[in-house]
Amino acid sequence: MGEKKKTTIVLFSGDYDKSMAAYIIANGAAAYDHEVTIFHTFWGLNALRKDEQIDVKKGFMEKMFGKMMPRGAEKMGLSRMNFAGFGPKMIKDVMKKHNAMSLPQLIEMAQEQEVKLVACTMTMDLLGLQQEELLENIEYAGVAAYLADAEDGNVNLFI
Amino acid sequence: MGEKKKTTIVLFSGDYDKSMAAYIIANGAAAYDHEVTIFHTFWGLNALRKDEQIDVKKGFMEKMFGKMMPRGAEKMGLSRMNFAGFGPKMIKDVMKKHNAMSLPQLIEMAQEQEVKLVACTMTMDLLGLQQEELLENIEYAGVAAYLADAEDGNVNLFI
Amino acid sequence: MGEKKKTTIVLFSGDYDKSMAAYIIANGAAAYDHEVTIFHTFWGLNALRKDEQIDVKKGFMEKMFGKMMPRGAEKMGLSRMNFAGFGPKMIKDVMKKHNAMSLPQLIEMAQEQEVKLVACTMTMDLLGLQQEELLENIEYAGVAAYLADAEDGNVNLFI
Repeated sequence: MGEKKKTTIVLFSGDYDKSMAAYIIANGAAAYDHEVTIFHTFWGLNALRKDEQIDVKKGFMEKMFGKMMPRGAEKMGLSRMNFAGFGPKMIKDVMKKHNAMSLPQLIEMAQEQEVKLVACTMTMDLLGLQQEELLENIEYAGVAAYLADAEDGNVNLFI
Repeated sequence: MGEKKKTTIVLFSGDYDKSMAAYIIANGAAAYDHEVTIFHTFWGLNALRKDEQIDVKKGFMEKMFGKMMPRGAEKMGLSRMNFAGFGPKMIKDVMKKHNAMSLPQLIEMAQEQEVKLVACTMTMDLLGLQQEELLENIEYAGVAAYLADAEDGNVNLFI
Repeated sequence: MGEKKKTTIVLFSGDYDKSMAAYIIANGAAAYDHEVTIFHTFWGLNALRKDEQIDVKKGFMEKMFGKMMPRGAEKMGLSRMNFAGFGPKMIKDVMKKHNAMSLPQLIEMAQEQEVKLVACTMTMDLLGLQQEELLENIEYAGVAAYLADAEDGNVNLFI
């Protein structure tokens, strides 16, 4: 009657490669029957953005953040060797060649495997992101909920 | 008679946003009655620097590091969208507008909540930082003390 | 008959300073009798590269990645203050002055202390790295093996 093991990841980074690592670990853990949560905070929220522009009322600063940050996983850059966008293209080409899953596919798979995707409400406020701009079927919570998940976690990572 | 839960964070990064995340998690954990330690190493030591210049004897390299690294939390840059210092200003403006706590306030709150703030003595040596240059009421230790805290930790993060 | 404590580190970063932090924690944990694993993925694989060029058959993309990525620990850059390679030289000079171990020495020590060094086969494929190009006496595995180590870990870090 063992309890399920738990994996809880804070995804702070807005890099394509780091987000891939987070989602590969999350999907692996879900396949091994862990209860998995990814808590998206700061730039990590960009992985959850829809790729089209959503009309919502925003102040000036919030509009600027909205424009400057990548709209969705597909548009994120690399943590290194980004070369003004050439690096991500190289990585994506090589991933396609090896039949590796892209980040948007990894996110979809995570949702199918019932990985809990959480958007940090505090940083949504700061960056001016609204629920309409983020993917469907995610949860909204703050640091207290993260800690409640993490304190019984077997694998806790900050990425 | 349950033991206290434990959160232990290695703060390696010298970025304003990552340090904020570390201190928000730490303050949250302390509020939930965890025993919390932040072990500041490498560039993370900059969060503990006093903001004025302190007169201490230093060699040439140590002086250069001292000059090139930000003097205190208020002067740290962002991990992305730094835009030569414009990014931190945007973030701070937006934080003020939302009544979010600044990094120096988060550090003060951590000290009030008895979060144990530790400076890594090995990297202090390397970067030529001396105790007089760092905040009061912090501890000094090495990797052995970190591991002693972390090995019984519930939430262990490297930020 | 207590079991051994376990430390499991994902080394994702290809930065000299972050890799140093990973290996210092790993060596510390091994000295305190932990069972220690470093799982090298993405840019973290560069720490395991041999420093000479190895003749292996590669496609065009794989050759480009091979050329653009640092060949071995000694050639890695810093996560900040890299200054086109000047930063690493400063750090190395100051480390020598303080008799601190260099990253290649830390890796050697880890191997002597039987820290398990693992190369992530999935990212080796992606980046076109072959076993002949990596250090001797390391293991090859994927995310499943990482999770098997990490889920019983006391200290789990993503660096």
